[in-house]
Amino acid sequence: MTAAAVVPGSFDPVTNGHLDVIERVAARFDRVVVACLCNPGKQPLFAVDERLALLAEVLGHLGNVEVDSFAGLLVDYCHAQDVGVIIKGLRAASDFEYELQMAQMNRSIGGVETLFLTTSPLHSFLSSSLVKEVARFGGDVDAFVPPVVAAQLRGRVT
Amino acid sequence: MTAAAVVPGSFDPVTNGHLDVIERVAARFDRVVVACLCNPGKQPLFAVDERLALLAEVLGHLGNVEVDSFAGLLVDYCHAQDVGVIIKGLRAASDFEYELQMAQMNRSIGGVETLFLTTSPLHSFLSSSLVKEVARFGGDVDAFVPPVVAAQLRGRVT
Amino acid sequence: MTAAAVVPGSFDPVTNGHLDVIERVAARFDRVVVACLCNPGKQPLFAVDERLALLAEVLGHLGNVEVDSFAGLLVDYCHAQDVGVIIKGLRAASDFEYELQMAQMNRSIGGVETLFLTTSPLHSFLSSSLVKEVARFGGDVDAFVPPVVAAQLRGRVT
Amino acid sequence: MTAAAVVPGSFDPVTNGHLDVIERVAARFDRVVVACLCNPGKQPLFAVDERLALLAEVLGHLGNVEVDSFAGLLVDYCHAQDVGVIIKGLRAASDFEYELQMAQMNRSIGGVETLFLTTSPLHSFLSSSLVKEVARFGGDVDAFVPPVVAAQLRGRVT
Amino acid sequence: MTAAAVVPGSFDPVTNGHLDVIERVAARFDRVVVACLCNPGKQPLFAVDERLALLAEVLGHLGNVEVDSFAGLLVDYCHAQDVGVIIKGLRAASDFEYELQMAQMNRSIGGVETLFLTTSPLHSFLSSSLVKEVARFGGDVDAFVPPVVAAQLRGRVT
Amino acid sequence: MTAAAVVPGSFDPVTNGHLDVIERVAARFDRVVVACLCNPGKQPLFAVDERLALLAEVLGHLGNVEVDSFAGLLVDYCHAQDVGVIIKGLRAASDFEYELQMAQMNRSIGGVETLFLTTSPLHSFLSSSLVKEVARFGGDVDAFVPPVVAAQLRGRVT
Repeated sequence: MTAAAVVPGSFDPVTNGHLDVIERVAARFDRVVVACLCNPGKQPLFAVDERLALLAEVLGHLGNVEVDSFAGLLVDYCHAQDVGVIIKGLRAASDFEYELQMAQMNRSIGGVETLFLTTSPLHSFLSSSLVKEVARFGGDVDAFVPPVVAAQLRGRVT
Repeated sequence: MTAAAVVPGSFDPVTNGHLDVIERVAARFDRVVVACLCNPGKQPLFAVDERLALLAEVLGHLGNVEVDSFAGLLVDYCHAQDVGVIIKGLRAASDFEYELQMAQMNRSIGGVETLFLTTSPLHSFLSSSLVKEVARFGGDVDAFVPPVVAAQLRGRVT
Repeated sequence: MTAAAVVPGSFDPVTNGHLDVIERVAARFDRVVVACLCNPGKQPLFAVDERLALLAEVLGHLGNVEVDSFAGLLVDYCHAQDVGVIIKGLRAASDFEYELQMAQMNRSIGGVETLFLTTSPLHSFLSSSLVKEVARFGGDVDAFVPPVVAAQLRGRVT
Repeated sequence: MTAAAVVPGSFDPVTNGHLDVIERVAARFDRVVVACLCNPGKQPLFAVDERLALLAEVLGHLGNVEVDSFAGLLVDYCHAQDVGVIIKGLRAASDFEYELQMAQMNRSIGGVETLFLTTSPLHSFLSSSLVKEVARFGGDVDAFVPPVVAAQLRGRVT
Repeated sequence: MTAAAVVPGSFDPVTNGHLDVIERVAARFDRVVVACLCNPGKQPLFAVDERLALLAEVLGHLGNVEVDSFAGLLVDYCHAQDVGVIIKGLRAASDFEYELQMAQMNRSIGGVETLFLTTSPLHSFLSSSLVKEVARFGGDVDAFVPPVVAAQLRGRVT
Repeated sequence: MTAAAVVPGSFDPVTNGHLDVIERVAARFDRVVVACLCNPGKQPLFAVDERLALLAEVLGHLGNVEVDSFAGLLVDYCHAQDVGVIIKGLRAASDFEYELQMAQMNRSIGGVETLFLTTSPLHSFLSSSLVKEVARFGGDVDAFVPPVVAAQLRGRVT
């Protein structure tokens, strides 16, 4: 059995918290698909292509990690990739209740299991939206995102 | 890479909720070690040997599942078994906060990752202690534990 | 004293989770008013008339249940109906905190009590919005809503 | 249909928070049974008889409220009383998760529904154990319990 | 050392809950800056100038309290005011998780500490948005906001 | 006004998490009293005298911090010290609900305010009891407690 997992997210943009979770999954699974959600209903700061490019750059050192995008139901994407496990990072108890609901639904409609990994304490307060808000007002985000993302954020919000 | 996982617990006694989690882990991992905690500080209803015998009986149909007991630190046991992943079932947000603390500690002292699986909705209200309390007062526990456990519980509490 | 209760909601559309709560309330109270909220600030998938028609159809077997709509303050509606008890289904601890705030407010401004019923485990991960999202992408929602609702959803989202 | 409800608890001793919940239930239901748990595994401050006497005294003004004690399974007691509804007061989200588990269990093993009432904000921080701790160290508990209970507490802890 | 604190918020409009928190902070700190957020992304009911005027009126009796507005990062504002402590009121556990994330971020990017005060039980269910919703439908808000705010709310929503 | 605060706890033993909270309080308040609880009902690993000695040693570099012990009600101790503010560290939402209850009670019976500080992410999973459990089984606790405490723990548990 090849252990494979999908790590879904918006990654708008990828943070050090995402990076930490993906690196830890890559150390335990044979094949990891980082799946970037195209959500037409939302106005992202970075287009899907830009998000994929940033993910590819910061994850290039991990040989068993693929970067891809998807639209529609996550369980349909998992089936198309022939992967039966979703992995999500959890930061806090309030994340958990929403994710529990999604996990039960994804198991019910598609037979796909969701496994949760707790984020490292150092990244437990990070989120893409909080990082974007700090950057928007000129705050320093070097501690929260990879250098290439920090550079893009500076260019994007000024 | 062989995907292996330790599923720890007191299993005093094993419930249908435990069984559901273990079966789902066994379907996704190559090797699953169900590790029964010997906690000298607690008065269990079933001795470790009895708990192991019940686990062995109800898990016999799963070829890739081993049943074992451990004392001391869970991370030391994982190292001895050469397994780097712990899997725990989560029922509710309040479970999560305690388990998050344990997961961070086990990663910090032993480099062992903890992955969480949400229990199936049907078993979300089950716990060994609640089942024992129902049995103690003559309530019917056939819906909550395997038949062999229900039989043992009836003999034990009357 | 005639035991009467208002069960409010958006019901856009009614799910098996709503149905379960309403059936259980109808078994314990003499008169149950299912009150569908007209919220002008939101874009529903089903208009109020359509939501009422679906509710009437799936609740037709319950003789002591009335279906109605309301706008404005829920406590004013309860007074107009001469009902002093609101009943809400709770799925998770995070639901609870928002509902607690609303319950205290409704008691403070209108002297109306709110009683909470926990949703059945099987429906604990269901919500109208999650069901609509699954249907939007062609997922199968037959397990989550009554057949007449499933049929309408299929027609609506394609 | 006569609306009847059991309000269970340890009531060791009854506080103003309990009183508030019971009064509100008595205003909405025809018959209310306040059921005091005899838990042989715990060391109460007040014996069951003393707890019943205090309950009877502070609830004497409510004509539709009965005071009783029970041991064993709450659902068995409800059946014996021919009551199908349990009512519990909820103070906080953490109360909720434990009570949700108990409610699902009581519905599963006995077909008894549990309805939750939120405690009034003024009493949201009260508990029998906190009141006993304050009294033990000579703190003033007059704001938290009825006068007859305060007098008994003062005599008991000095 | 002069004990100084910033109490930030939207105050759209100020409620009795805000007032209670600010009065309690003013009793313990030498200097209190009530900082009203100008958030261009939101449509407030009251413009910043109106919110400031209401705050000034209801806080006029507190000699050590200043009223001000800010835009951008809260930590930059704190530095400009030479204040190293933010104080926020907490009502419930779900407030806490979001506020914890913000507190860690503000300490990380600006070295500013956040201290939390629990709201008084009587105000634990109040929020500006809930008060506005009650007022919008003609409900009585006299118990929730100072008289001058109640008067303005009545004029504004009819 | 001299800003003074009491930081209460069991400190059995003091951890790096406690140290971090106390250092941050000492940087913002003029006078900090670290108050070690003598709880006769519990069996501590370190006697009160030993806990005070360890606190004194690891806090010696902070000139405005006093170390003391207390028994009985915390509010009585605060009054005796002429301090009107208690400061507690919060790690998680579940901590919060218990602490909220205590804070409301302490304000109600003694007029003492409680301010909460969030623990640093790096220490968010630490607790004295977890550290003792790791030490008991020979785990390495050097990353969680000051060196002098680690040395004492090693001597104590073997």
